[in-house]
Amino acid sequence: MTLTHQACRALDAQDPLAPLRAHFTLPPGVIYLDGNSLGVAPKATAARVADVVTREWGTDLIQSWNTARWFDLPQRLGNQLAPLIGAGPDEVVCTDSTSINLYKVLSAALNIAREDSPTRRRIVSERSNFPTDLYIAEGLCQERGLELVLVEPEDMATALTSEVAVLMLTHVNYRTGAMHDMAAITAAAHAQGILCVWDLAHSAGAVPVDLNGAGADFSIGCGYKYLNGGPGAPAFVWAHPRHASRCWQPLSGWWGHAAPFAFTPDYQPAPGITRYLCGTQPIISLSALQCGLDVFTAAQSLGGMAALRSKSLALTDLFIRLVEERCAGHGLGLATPREHALRGSQVCLTRDEGAGVNGQGSGAYAIVQALIARGVIGDYRAGSGAAPAAGKGDGGTAHKDILRFGFTPLYIGFEDVWNAVEHLRQVLEAAEWQRPEFNKTHAVT
Amino acid sequence: MTLTHQACRALDAQDPLAPLRAHFTLPPGVIYLDGNSLGVAPKATAARVADVVTREWGTDLIQSWNTARWFDLPQRLGNQLAPLIGAGPDEVVCTDSTSINLYKVLSAALNIAREDSPTRRRIVSERSNFPTDLYIAEGLCQERGLELVLVEPEDMATALTSEVAVLMLTHVNYRTGAMHDMAAITAAAHAQGILCVWDLAHSAGAVPVDLNGAGADFSIGCGYKYLNGGPGAPAFVWAHPRHASRCWQPLSGWWGHAAPFAFTPDYQPAPGITRYLCGTQPIISLSALQCGLDVFTAAQSLGGMAALRSKSLALTDLFIRLVEERCAGHGLGLATPREHALRGSQVCLTRDEGAGVNGQGSGAYAIVQALIARGVIGDYRAGSGAAPAAGKGDGGTAHKDILRFGFTPLYIGFEDVWNAVEHLRQVLEAAEWQRPEFNKTHAVT
Repeated sequence: MTLTHQACRALDAQDPLAPLRAHFTLPPGVIYLDGNSLGVAPKATAARVADVVTREWGTDLIQSWNTARWFDLPQRLGNQLAPLIGAGPDEVVCTDSTSINLYKVLSAALNIAREDSPTRRRIVSERSNFPTDLYIAEGLCQERGLELVLVEPEDMATALTSEVAVLMLTHVNYRTGAMHDMAAITAAAHAQGILCVWDLAHSAGAVPVDLNGAGADFSIGCGYKYLNGGPGAPAFVWAHPRHASRCWQPLSGWWGHAAPFAFTPDYQPAPGITRYLCGTQPIISLSALQCGLDVFTAAQSLGGMAALRSKSLALTDLFIRLVEERCAGHGLGLATPREHALRGSQVCLTRDEGAGVNGQGSGAYAIVQALIARGVIGDYRAGSGAAPAAGKGDGGTAHKDILRFGFTPLYIGFEDVWNAVEHLRQVLEAAEWQRPEFNKTHAVT
Repeated sequence: MTLTHQACRALDAQDPLAPLRAHFTLPPGVIYLDGNSLGVAPKATAARVADVVTREWGTDLIQSWNTARWFDLPQRLGNQLAPLIGAGPDEVVCTDSTSINLYKVLSAALNIAREDSPTRRRIVSERSNFPTDLYIAEGLCQERGLELVLVEPEDMATALTSEVAVLMLTHVNYRTGAMHDMAAITAAAHAQGILCVWDLAHSAGAVPVDLNGAGADFSIGCGYKYLNGGPGAPAFVWAHPRHASRCWQPLSGWWGHAAPFAFTPDYQPAPGITRYLCGTQPIISLSALQCGLDVFTAAQSLGGMAALRSKSLALTDLFIRLVEERCAGHGLGLATPREHALRGSQVCLTRDEGAGVNGQGSGAYAIVQALIARGVIGDYRAGSGAAPAAGKGDGGTAHKDILRFGFTPLYIGFEDVWNAVEHLRQVLEAAEWQRPEFNKTHAVT
């Protein structure tokens, strides 16, 4: 049976999570499928931020460190976030950026793994991991005389040797939306005496995560994607309780001190995850993050992450089906796994090389631009361009240009999916994407 | 001649900088002498932050990375800040926290100094430096098998030996307000082949700084004190052009990459200070910092930092004089240097041990609390309590409890100083500070 616009509307009418959309300020005329890059603003954020600026800071000034509890905001937000990622109370803090938190946990993981086995000199990661994660690992390896080994997913098992200290992976791939089996991979790594660091940038708030259940060692993630914390919102960091108090992380600033107001010259790390704090945090941005987390708290009574996951899979299933039914014959392929267990909350389409204007390039960038002009916001990620090894790396799509669409079940509905695909169909069938204005060299996005 | 309230009012009437006060939201009934801890909110900030949340983020979403120029905000703010600290264009970025920026520059300085002379294994600093600076240095030293040597100011010259790689100092001492001679100390360190890292947390926006003129090597500082950027505002980092492109800093995240949107797996640092960026920045807090810097831009036509410095010295001179004239006989002393060249923009009073209630403690904490209850906001810093070595360390005041008062010439006037001292006089003469509510164990401040 062919799906209809009307059928998609009916799905929205039956959606128990549909009321959550009212928590967000969605601009009129926009179908926003880029929440995996920057989440949408919750309606509550503007008032919260105004209150922080005018009352907490403007009127109460320095006293707000106590009265507004600025000082333990990283811990309070961490506790609010914890259930989304399978962490326990007092195991998470919201602070700094994802990259900086990765440096902290990677340093700690290296220290712990190498204390036990000094001959372990490698960090293993995926070649298609988010680049900044690789840069941080590269920097640490260079500093400590260690080695960063990048592998394709299918070569990971053989790479987990007795020379490896840490396996560093992003749970959901930023480029393809493919999701790792955290529990199985962690177990395989542990069987080889290797610690696991998981980046949840594209997972937290998008798919259920169970860090403690998987026995993971360390984790970090992003506040401004599916958590809707605002542009550049502070990130989060988790350490398994068996590790959290075990060693210093190198960014040993005063917020991680056991007695930060004693002003002693010697550093004494606080017990537990608090030692993963460093300097004073940007309170306005941190307060905005709370409004993003509050929506998840509100979603608890509607089924929480399990219900959000069901809807997310229904949305991405629908998008895949509609693209295949209605946009066939335009050189589009699927980079995201069809299998639910392997899929995050985004769908990435490939486009064949040579399908661009005059047979140049893939045209994927231009298609994304034409969609944006119609109010359908997705994004584009360039392929490596390297000659493909059949089935290798990213399921053989690493060399291809990608059209990336994120589906945030908090605010995206089934009719949105229908409309987005209809715009895509029109852009392709009328060759609208071939217009010169969509084929300029692309700027920073 | 004894100064009168009327004379202080007259000073305000003649003050060419007095109009700057209108840029700030000073709560009614408050004399805010804690701008050295958390600066006051500029009036423009609330509207700026609201615009970032509702329009830039809420409406324009991901496109604001380009259209609102979020991506180069760290560089644009750095360029706006640069003239305040004697830095050139494209030499400063505003990013991360002071502690994290210190880690970056200290790592870079160690790499450079030790590349030239691998036997240099020490970082030297002052025992009374701000503790988080010492914690960061301690962490780095522990990680790299180096040594942190803490000295009293009077022992610094002899500590600068051929074993020292880096001298790390805070320009204006957080506890006493004493200011170092940056040019002379830098020259003395360089004569021994030692690099200098300067923390400008209590200098930037408070006293004129000339990093290039002093030939300093690296510098960092705080956005939320005299720069009025908001609670936990992002900090700044500067590297002398001779060093900026010379090595990686270890927090090698994607914002410091030469081509951040190429998403290549290998890190290639951007030229110059941009490589001192790491991860995505908290845009709301960063935008608020701009409003703080805008006031300094507005102050340019009124004489800029030179005029602000003259007023700051006049304010602190007046405070010292009035306290000594009107609050004598209550066990107060002066921790801040009288000599202008050695003074920042704060005045710190000591109180004799045993002058507290029933001869217990100094009573300094209770006096500060009683002042706060009257709307005069200063703060308290506990002494080390250790037996004093005559004249040693902090001019012999390191063991004493401190009452700390910051004078921000942007928004503090001469009548404020009169009124603050009058409140202090009344608190002392009526023994108001001895009330039980002011003598509770003090909480986090």
